[in-house]
Amino acid sequence: MIRTNANRLQKLIELFSEYGKTENNGVTRLALSPEDLAARKKFQALCEEVGMTVKHDDMGNMYATLPGKQNLPPIVIGSHLDSVIKGGRFDGVLGVLTALETVYTIIDEKIELDYPITVVNFTNEEGARFEPSLMSSGVLSGKFDKKKMITSTDKNGITFEKSLNESGFEGSEANRLIEASAYIELHIEQGPVLERKNLEIGVVEGVLGMVCYEISVFGESNHAGTTPISMRKDPMFTAANVVVDLQKQLQRLDSELVYTIGRINAYPNIHTVIPSEVTFTLEARHKDPSVIAEVTRMVEELPKNISGCPIKSTRLWDRDTVNFDEEVVNTVESACKELGYKENRMYSGAGHDAQFIASYIPTAMIFVPSVNGYSHREDELTSYEDCAKGANVLLNTVLKLCLEKVNK
Amino acid sequence: MIRTNANRLQKLIELFSEYGKTENNGVTRLALSPEDLAARKKFQALCEEVGMTVKHDDMGNMYATLPGKQNLPPIVIGSHLDSVIKGGRFDGVLGVLTALETVYTIIDEKIELDYPITVVNFTNEEGARFEPSLMSSGVLSGKFDKKKMITSTDKNGITFEKSLNESGFEGSEANRLIEASAYIELHIEQGPVLERKNLEIGVVEGVLGMVCYEISVFGESNHAGTTPISMRKDPMFTAANVVVDLQKQLQRLDSELVYTIGRINAYPNIHTVIPSEVTFTLEARHKDPSVIAEVTRMVEELPKNISGCPIKSTRLWDRDTVNFDEEVVNTVESACKELGYKENRMYSGAGHDAQFIASYIPTAMIFVPSVNGYSHREDELTSYEDCAKGANVLLNTVLKLCLEKVNK
Repeated sequence: MIRTNANRLQKLIELFSEYGKTENNGVTRLALSPEDLAARKKFQALCEEVGMTVKHDDMGNMYATLPGKQNLPPIVIGSHLDSVIKGGRFDGVLGVLTALETVYTIIDEKIELDYPITVVNFTNEEGARFEPSLMSSGVLSGKFDKKKMITSTDKNGITFEKSLNESGFEGSEANRLIEASAYIELHIEQGPVLERKNLEIGVVEGVLGMVCYEISVFGESNHAGTTPISMRKDPMFTAANVVVDLQKQLQRLDSELVYTIGRINAYPNIHTVIPSEVTFTLEARHKDPSVIAEVTRMVEELPKNISGCPIKSTRLWDRDTVNFDEEVVNTVESACKELGYKENRMYSGAGHDAQFIASYIPTAMIFVPSVNGYSHREDELTSYEDCAKGANVLLNTVLKLCLEKVNK
Repeated sequence: MIRTNANRLQKLIELFSEYGKTENNGVTRLALSPEDLAARKKFQALCEEVGMTVKHDDMGNMYATLPGKQNLPPIVIGSHLDSVIKGGRFDGVLGVLTALETVYTIIDEKIELDYPITVVNFTNEEGARFEPSLMSSGVLSGKFDKKKMITSTDKNGITFEKSLNESGFEGSEANRLIEASAYIELHIEQGPVLERKNLEIGVVEGVLGMVCYEISVFGESNHAGTTPISMRKDPMFTAANVVVDLQKQLQRLDSELVYTIGRINAYPNIHTVIPSEVTFTLEARHKDPSVIAEVTRMVEELPKNISGCPIKSTRLWDRDTVNFDEEVVNTVESACKELGYKENRMYSGAGHDAQFIASYIPTAMIFVPSVNGYSHREDELTSYEDCAKGANVLLNTVLKLCLEKVNK
């Protein structure tokens, strides 16, 4: 098996860690910020140096292409260069850099592929500067309306449109990723499973379906000292009881179900005042739609009133489980096995551009372990050794796909 | 029994409702704000018009005195003119205006009392502009350090000291309320008990003791989609279980105990992230210190760790139950009975300047009903009829105290 150059990959990671570097060795590289633009320019320069052609589309997505022997739809690999505020050095960027390292190795090894290889950098995956996340892959796949997306503003009121227009990375709609032979995205796991199970690679079969509710419990706000308990309509205790009951029901469902109450707000949120309202979110993810349907039923069947407190639930959003392309997933798995890496098939609980691209291009993902499962934080970490293993899987997946597809 | 002039009192209330009037018929009259200063000037003018002498002390407290036949320590009545943001037309100001109406009636009826009567307006009772609340009565009673208090700043960074200095109401420390024969404060109940029990007057025996804790549950923040439930340390579900367990224990204690979780915060409070911490307050009030001690024991005996989540409780503050002067309380009660009002003895769950003044002056309070128990909101309401009844009780309490004390 051919392997990528681990040392060169490490240097690439270290180099890109400088763009938006934070005090604590993380990065803040918001989409189309000066830090992101500097990283994009470097990425483009590195691609052009080795003879790739770099194009931009009308969402600022970057496509660096190494020509193939035949005029076939390219095999696309990559991810995103943007980060959240005080994010880590691996989320997104690792998918772009392992893709670049894959191309470097193909060139080094003088491998002549029938397929063009395109390294992609999707604009504003994180949605940390301009909501929503997965903005550009959403536009490419028709999930999001471009006209609406480009009016998204950052916290200073600057629109995506203006920001892209001034970036130097606005290209033509004609350059969009429309047809491709495959899309493979390498990403950090962002969870603890690989590490805990002592695995080196996650072969990602798809992205979990999910549902997210906002549940509000209304009460009667009043002075905490002067209102006897018997005369209260206290939404806080009611909400706590609802949460505990929901937990009991959720625990009885499938052990692979994940459920989270990440946000809770009380109003007016003053220690001496009985709240008038307590609102919290409940989101749950599972690959099996019938399990998600159970969660939905559970929330929809909450009593409309408990202890005098009306309860209202609002479905904030949901997404169906995305199943990746079986052939591409199998190829990733074969590459792992042939490389002798400890791997397992898994679903991604987090969202990725791949979930949208999968709607029109045969897609799979490769996960590498996240130390402690941490992501979106400055101490996010994947060992350079694991990064290199991921790059090897990506490279060999690309090579195998080229052979398989040509031999078909 | 002599009665105050209900019509005149209503006009006074309507007049003072104009100072800081809000869109929804409430008031915003923050301590020493232009609105408060205008109300103070009007109050002073009204007092001086009827021959009272008005003095200010070094905290800006105002004392308007009607001389008595003898040079005795005055009987002091009053409350505060300041309000919270978007507060009501009755909290505080009603105690000052019923005191003024009491003096008007004494003058009208040509009653010559042995004792001087002083109407007081305490500065910054609410603490809504300058923390803490009860600031000036706290300084007078030695509970608060004046040097520290005057450095308290509002949200624009203006100190209490500067604000008082520019107000025209800064007076001499020699004018402080040091000695008095009694202090009686009329106030709205700020709770629903009088209304629900169809009572007209609350004879306030004291102020409930209380304890307030902040309870933090710590967990491990991680991505909501990628962390299996078995690998989580989720402080949200742990906190909900702690709240429900506390509720069960608190319910078993005395039925007069009031307990409130008014504030809760999760970090980072994002629906897609397992929180790293959930912190909430628990405060409880009861007149019996042994019941408060039970609450304390309950919180102190919380497990230090539940489901892998460390739990930490911090006592934010407490106050002992304040028992008012039995003689003054009895006099209020007698006045009610003689006036034929439906009354009941009760404790105040809310804090009042009276609780500090009670430490060195024989004190009692008179409560009038709050519609729906509402206070600190624009729709705070006490009927003019109930206001007048309260004023009658205040007047007759003053008259009875004068007679009782002189006859002693």
